[in-house]
Amino acid sequence: MVDIFKQTPLYRYLMYCNETEMDKNILDCGAGGDTPPLALFAQYGYITHGIDCDMEQINLANTYGQEHSVYLDIRQGDMRQLAFDDESIPFVYSYNTVFHMRKSEVKQSVEEMKRVLKPNGLMFVNFLTVNDFRCGEGPDLGENQYEQFDDDQPVIHSYYRSDEPDSLFSDMEVLYKEDRVLERIFNGERIRQGFVDYIVKKI
Amino acid sequence: MVDIFKQTPLYRYLMYCNETEMDKNILDCGAGGDTPPLALFAQYGYITHGIDCDMEQINLANTYGQEHSVYLDIRQGDMRQLAFDDESIPFVYSYNTVFHMRKSEVKQSVEEMKRVLKPNGLMFVNFLTVNDFRCGEGPDLGENQYEQFDDDQPVIHSYYRSDEPDSLFSDMEVLYKEDRVLERIFNGERIRQGFVDYIVKKI
Repeated sequence: MVDIFKQTPLYRYLMYCNETEMDKNILDCGAGGDTPPLALFAQYGYITHGIDCDMEQINLANTYGQEHSVYLDIRQGDMRQLAFDDESIPFVYSYNTVFHMRKSEVKQSVEEMKRVLKPNGLMFVNFLTVNDFRCGEGPDLGENQYEQFDDDQPVIHSYYRSDEPDSLFSDMEVLYKEDRVLERIFNGERIRQGFVDYIVKKI
Repeated sequence: MVDIFKQTPLYRYLMYCNETEMDKNILDCGAGGDTPPLALFAQYGYITHGIDCDMEQINLANTYGQEHSVYLDIRQGDMRQLAFDDESIPFVYSYNTVFHMRKSEVKQSVEEMKRVLKPNGLMFVNFLTVNDFRCGEGPDLGENQYEQFDDDQPVIHSYYRSDEPDSLFSDMEVLYKEDRVLERIFNGERIRQGFVDYIVKKI
């Protein structure tokens, strides 16, 4: 039986990708972790590539690949400087990843994703929003950027107003945008999270 | 290859269902249409049942079932009066359906879903919100209820503030709630839709 992937917004992105006539070749920026969503795309015949900055997360993803007999091609890499040629990949996405940087670096990373994307290619990116319960926590770097901790590791989180990332895609066609505020139980506590997801096409 | 279902919030509901120890037996209220999401649950070993008020939609779903060699057990029925015993089904959901009635009937339908649900069972229901672009269109029945048309057929749409359905679930545990505002291209025009989704547990 096929696994269900917790990164549910990527099912919609996959539907959009499948509706095109482009080659099934996809890059995930922030591809590591114990249930790598590239495996979902592999199930639908995509050749997959992934980068992640964190070797521990890459190892988790590769363990998943070995256990499920699927080669995902996930390597260490930097979103701000992608080791891929201009206009070389039809599908590029980044799920719950890009906002772990300062906004200037987020912009740089989105520009890199746009650079490597083929014309007419589709991109998925999502952002944390100011609706998130952690917005405002920790040392303030200005413009809703905060120094916070994830699993005792220091990390920067950048939070966006729901219309703020629009300007990053002003040269693209926005096919789908979803502003989400969700409440769920995490470690026994009810938490509120905020995300805004984009599916955009290179024109 | 397994179909991807456009009703993507149901993937998350399926994950919650799979994490329980309850019998895999599920009811969809509003189960008709050309890509019936009960088929997703059938793929994961669920015995499925569905009701719909519209024979045309039931026929579309049954055609899908025949073409995919899966028996979904979808029959004509009324959400306001479910032909199922009290506490007989572990999983009951209604996707993009319940708001096609007046709010008094929505409440009646949700109460019926709660009645047939087994203790500890999980329910998914979603509602249109006042963020939807059509809220305010057509003859006003009060309390954000409007007489509108879908495909030239007259229909009532009830729109909710995002915290308004909470009271329908005050006797249940809310495991997950998501308030979504989405923009997409539909028939060549950019439209804005608003939904709030609940995954709740009977206690």
